[in-house]
Amino acid sequence: MEIKVLKDILSANDQMAERNRALLDSKKVTVLNIMSSPGSGKTSLILETIRALKKQVRIGVIEGDIASTIDAQKVGEEKVPVVQINTGGECHLEAGQVGRALESLPLDKIDLLLIENVGNLVCPGEFKLGEDKKVLILSVPEGDDKVHKYPLLFSMADAIVVNKIDLLPYARFDVPAFLKAVRGMNRRARIFQVSCTTRKGIEEWTKWVTSNLGQ
Amino acid sequence: MEIKVLKDILSANDQMAERNRALLDSKKVTVLNIMSSPGSGKTSLILETIRALKKQVRIGVIEGDIASTIDAQKVGEEKVPVVQINTGGECHLEAGQVGRALESLPLDKIDLLLIENVGNLVCPGEFKLGEDKKVLILSVPEGDDKVHKYPLLFSMADAIVVNKIDLLPYARFDVPAFLKAVRGMNRRARIFQVSCTTRKGIEEWTKWVTSNLGQ
Repeated sequence: MEIKVLKDILSANDQMAERNRALLDSKKVTVLNIMSSPGSGKTSLILETIRALKKQVRIGVIEGDIASTIDAQKVGEEKVPVVQINTGGECHLEAGQVGRALESLPLDKIDLLLIENVGNLVCPGEFKLGEDKKVLILSVPEGDDKVHKYPLLFSMADAIVVNKIDLLPYARFDVPAFLKAVRGMNRRARIFQVSCTTRKGIEEWTKWVTSNLGQ
Repeated sequence: MEIKVLKDILSANDQMAERNRALLDSKKVTVLNIMSSPGSGKTSLILETIRALKKQVRIGVIEGDIASTIDAQKVGEEKVPVVQINTGGECHLEAGQVGRALESLPLDKIDLLLIENVGNLVCPGEFKLGEDKKVLILSVPEGDDKVHKYPLLFSMADAIVVNKIDLLPYARFDVPAFLKAVRGMNRRARIFQVSCTTRKGIEEWTKWVTSNLGQ
């Protein structure tokens, strides 16, 4: 019976995700669902993406957090429309929350919507939001072995961003082992190595982002 | 109705946690439930604790992971009894899983049981396992603002370990701001600043661990 209820919840979420998808398609908005552990650099990657692209692309942001508006305030300083979702304890965003956030965004004036999920390397993978692409960030200090321990998100990601490569000299992160492990479960994901601090790799990342616009 | 089912699940978990607690009390085993994001250093702290204390304290370990036995293998090399729980997708350990793991451990020969939860800064906080103390690790590269974003675990922890302090020169982590934020929601937690790489702070941490034995 417990499993049945869980299925009902997931199915309701999928229906809401499809409604979001239909609305966003009609408005020609490309959506990235950005997921990672806490502190891997979701907000930093969003800020660098805005700084690199905002002259040519109209960007909107949905910030998902259990509590606080810290990230929404940072993004708001870049003068792009942003909505904060506080889940109030829930460990992931759900499509219904995103649907309500979409009502507060000027979708006719947005080409690219960046959704920052709650910091969690597990649960967000089970809830579609209506996104075009799933982006997973892993930061160097977390260690390359996380691919084996948290396989779901690594296997389903469309893009995997290795962030904080400026910390490679100080942390144990075996890049070839990481790449081999990812390829063992996901052959199609684009993999980027970036540092939001030094901006290394950001241009290659933003080229991929723009290649997904208007599809 | 969904909420009702969730309550039933939590209640069943709490009952199992109490059963674990009674068994562990009868065997005089002190239990730490160690929680953090992926890659914050749960396994490293467990390994350093074993290395510091194994001559004077009989230690056992339960390793919780969604998949893989990487951590259990590392711990096993220290010649202490270890049981791996693979949750197969679940984002946290539950008391029933720990109860089954206890059946495989020589509890009569263990003074201290270290349970490494699944890497997740949210969900494990909602599931008691039968532990004496909840230990939360936050690593420096994750950033000091995580206290505001993930308040549940910070408010309920008995000990908070700031790990990877050797990376303070290379990361944005405001120690005074962190301490102030923690004290705003949790006045009783012991706070440790350690590096499992340089071993700084490990002695203070292990003193606290031993002060909890046999209580």
